[in-house]
Amino acid sequence: MSEMNRAWVLDHYPDGMPTADCWRMEERARPAPGDGQVLARSIYLSVDPYMRGRISKAANYAAGVQIGEVMHGGAVAEIAESRHPDWKPGDLIETMGFGWREWAVLDPATEGPNGLRRVDPALGPIHAYLSYLGMPGITAWIALERIGALQAGETVLVSAASGAVGQVVGQIAKDAGCRAVAVASSPEKLAWCREIGFDAGVDYRAEADRLEDAIREACPDGIDVFFDNTAGPIHDAAMKNLAQNARIVICGMVANAGTFDQPDMGERHLRRILVARARMEGFLIFDHMARWDDARRALAAMAADGRLKFKTDVLDGIEHMPQAFINLLTGQNFGKQLVQVSEDPAA
Amino acid sequence: MSEMNRAWVLDHYPDGMPTADCWRMEERARPAPGDGQVLARSIYLSVDPYMRGRISKAANYAAGVQIGEVMHGGAVAEIAESRHPDWKPGDLIETMGFGWREWAVLDPATEGPNGLRRVDPALGPIHAYLSYLGMPGITAWIALERIGALQAGETVLVSAASGAVGQVVGQIAKDAGCRAVAVASSPEKLAWCREIGFDAGVDYRAEADRLEDAIREACPDGIDVFFDNTAGPIHDAAMKNLAQNARIVICGMVANAGTFDQPDMGERHLRRILVARARMEGFLIFDHMARWDDARRALAAMAADGRLKFKTDVLDGIEHMPQAFINLLTGQNFGKQLVQVSEDPAA
Repeated sequence: MSEMNRAWVLDHYPDGMPTADCWRMEERARPAPGDGQVLARSIYLSVDPYMRGRISKAANYAAGVQIGEVMHGGAVAEIAESRHPDWKPGDLIETMGFGWREWAVLDPATEGPNGLRRVDPALGPIHAYLSYLGMPGITAWIALERIGALQAGETVLVSAASGAVGQVVGQIAKDAGCRAVAVASSPEKLAWCREIGFDAGVDYRAEADRLEDAIREACPDGIDVFFDNTAGPIHDAAMKNLAQNARIVICGMVANAGTFDQPDMGERHLRRILVARARMEGFLIFDHMARWDDARRALAAMAADGRLKFKTDVLDGIEHMPQAFINLLTGQNFGKQLVQVSEDPAA
Repeated sequence: MSEMNRAWVLDHYPDGMPTADCWRMEERARPAPGDGQVLARSIYLSVDPYMRGRISKAANYAAGVQIGEVMHGGAVAEIAESRHPDWKPGDLIETMGFGWREWAVLDPATEGPNGLRRVDPALGPIHAYLSYLGMPGITAWIALERIGALQAGETVLVSAASGAVGQVVGQIAKDAGCRAVAVASSPEKLAWCREIGFDAGVDYRAEADRLEDAIREACPDGIDVFFDNTAGPIHDAAMKNLAQNARIVICGMVANAGTFDQPDMGERHLRRILVARARMEGFLIFDHMARWDDARRALAAMAADGRLKFKTDVLDGIEHMPQAFINLLTGQNFGKQLVQVSEDPAA
């Protein structure tokens, strides 16, 4: 950790799949907090699929990163200096408004995703606030509550199942008495999914030529809930295996990361939606900040009694941020992808 | 009306858009009812877009018509002979289980869509039981109740707006205080839509090269509820104009009638569903028979006090059945397409 403030700024928008040169590292002076503000040092920085949408000129649900601006992103961080009465040095926080940098001046009055949330080290590793106790885990929990409407005995298919959201979806599904089926990109990832309770798995790379059949074999009664983190060929194969009254959570589309700004051409499934009387719904966690604490409590309780296990993939050093993000978009990570930037005081 | 029983049987499955030679007329002996059955003569036969799915070898939500079998279809009919204590000659009925023929032996014990429902001539023309007081109107009413969740002030876009379902959707939307926008295939159809209360209209043939923009101009605040009866280019243009939290009723896909057995290739809209937090749901009226009478009462009340107007397109003579159906699939009808087979005792 330097006394300066290393930060990754956006150099140019990617044309297709992002490459490391889309960002450049700048060394800046460490900033000082103003009245009512705090200075925080990053401990763990998160990379998440939603960031692909932030580096596109296309309209999206949140404002994009401007050229020359620090890349958007969440962090678990420690307060280093405080000019706010509610926060003191050593307090641990999580915020989505940190950015890819070592130090950030933050405003505790900020609301919503970019606000400051206290990290309680008693609940788990502090980086869990970026995974199963944070945005990805809470996404899984609230999306299943609102759209999934799980009934015991149903089949739940999850794409990117060993990822940050997918691992939690599978274990909530098991906890609800469902059959959980993983789709992932390697035998190792599927072995992990089985270890945490998934009943079956499909290796979409090995089965690429017969994905529809492979999913049918893994879901012989059809798919009641399809939790879609990828779009692309997995989406197509799943849509051909819907059970009656299926629910489809549209949560992510990482398979399109390399073609983000192009129309997504392929087969459409409107007749299948009609014939199955299926419901497909787009989900964005940022609409549900009021449920955040309830979801975290429920997830912490599951973790405390062993019903929720979780794998994290940590790279060391802020210099690896672009690579960590590209690994995530290309499925080279295994578990929630993080970058450790400085010492973890709770580890 | 012959003393024989003319019937249209399926000659072969269509390859693409159905043609008149897919069916052949057979003259059969007029059947006699068995114990507990009735004999009915058809007065009006219905053609409906769902019938395209019945003459495909592809799996669908209902069993298809076999080669040589009488074509499936609904009718308003009169009981001619009865061997069932609850029915007597002269009683008027509606059933989806009649078929394209002059006479049918029916079993009053049948449940579901193919069961016998009494027609009350006091509620409107008796053929209304095949349109706004029957399956199409009830489809509009229940789908809007269950999926539309209309709020006053919202914008409701309807494709095939001058069709049997679309006319009713628009008028229910107006009744709920919404802004109703029609998509139809000619200035004459759009003029009718304005006459029955639609606020704006888009001619998808005239605007084919700029349909997305034309819908944007007609729906400047975006589409809150998209009632999709067509799929195809109208679907694409509508999906590019969704408002936040839009609801999309997948009710029909008549635009694909000529490519029914092929994959529906084109642009997919998963990102738009995510960004708009939209909900897309397939709707089949046959799941909701228990609400049928409530819906009909509500629609009859709307018609009685002038809030529901309706246009019907009647061809005369059972020999026109294939052409009536092809007219429907190609948008050459104007209003609910029917064929009158014999004298209407209530007209």
